[in-house]
Amino acid sequence: MKKKGLLVVLSGPSGVGKNTVCDQLLTSYSNLEYSISMTTRSPRIGETDGENYHFVSKEEFQTMIANDGLLEWAEVFGNFYGTPQSFVDRRLEQGKDVVLEIDIQGALQVKKKRPDGVFIFLLPPSLQELRHRIKKRGTEDDDAMSKRLEAAKSEINTVFQYDYTIINTDIQQTADWIYSVISAEKCNVDRVGETLVKEVINGE
Amino acid sequence: MKKKGLLVVLSGPSGVGKNTVCDQLLTSYSNLEYSISMTTRSPRIGETDGENYHFVSKEEFQTMIANDGLLEWAEVFGNFYGTPQSFVDRRLEQGKDVVLEIDIQGALQVKKKRPDGVFIFLLPPSLQELRHRIKKRGTEDDDAMSKRLEAAKSEINTVFQYDYTIINTDIQQTADWIYSVISAEKCNVDRVGETLVKEVINGE
Repeated sequence: MKKKGLLVVLSGPSGVGKNTVCDQLLTSYSNLEYSISMTTRSPRIGETDGENYHFVSKEEFQTMIANDGLLEWAEVFGNFYGTPQSFVDRRLEQGKDVVLEIDIQGALQVKKKRPDGVFIFLLPPSLQELRHRIKKRGTEDDDAMSKRLEAAKSEINTVFQYDYTIINTDIQQTADWIYSVISAEKCNVDRVGETLVKEVINGE
Repeated sequence: MKKKGLLVVLSGPSGVGKNTVCDQLLTSYSNLEYSISMTTRSPRIGETDGENYHFVSKEEFQTMIANDGLLEWAEVFGNFYGTPQSFVDRRLEQGKDVVLEIDIQGALQVKKKRPDGVFIFLLPPSLQELRHRIKKRGTEDDDAMSKRLEAAKSEINTVFQYDYTIINTDIQQTADWIYSVISAEKCNVDRVGETLVKEVINGE
């Protein structure tokens, strides 16, 4: 019997480095699959449909919502972003582990639909370091920055709704921890105990 | 603040290869500490006190039991075997991860005292393979073998009292899975969430 893959949800406050860590994880561990989001915003230069995002019209997106075809979605500055469920499910059925890199609101939406996912929360080493990382991007003025950090503080408290948490100090190290978590979950008795015992005792 | 180490309990039916896997684990990952058992049996040729076992008299062992100084113990063919608690606790306090390689009865005793340990159950690839492994040792006649395999079947059903289970096909691979489990448990939100959130928010 083909074993189902794991749904791995990677989240954390904005600025923590989710995206960079996710890239490193997929580069280091090429057996993992990345879930490509769907969006109604226009492609930026260099972005490819089906690689960075699935680019769709607002009508297509609304139809997806109406058909319950998204694991999570949100509207940000008039654009829609979401995770198509069918792509994820197809890969999981094929036994592949699928990584979703999404913001905290999205992750908590997925948790309601898929409590059997593996939920990982990235923490910054400190709030000062988070401020430093956001500043380096150079996209926020001082006022926006203060709001971002206040938001991060309350976001950090959602960590207790996740299964695992990792302080993102070193990108490669964080990617390796995440892969350890995925490996460990494949030995979790609640997940695999019954199947394995049957295999061993009945030689199935 | 020094983080406490993890108590890792490695168990499984006899013949599954606990001992070999444990040796490989400690060779590959030298940061782990092995908990040395205490016994009243005489040292065999080549065995060193404090390395293979702590060899003690029956009186000393009885005193340990009376003082609740053992995490688990059993009498086998008139000899006593047990795990001294103080050694384990000292290492855990120092932040070291301590590996106990013990039989199923022992593991379940430890679980009652230390439910926060990480309990790992090794499974054989099949009952035929378990028979083959026991046979290779050449210590059992046919009748004893049948009893051993019957016992193994019911022992395997205790797997649901453990946290993780691994089919021991390849020794190095099993050791690597165990190390992944240990790494993952260090990111378990229930274990480290509160401490890490405090560290990040208060810069502690």
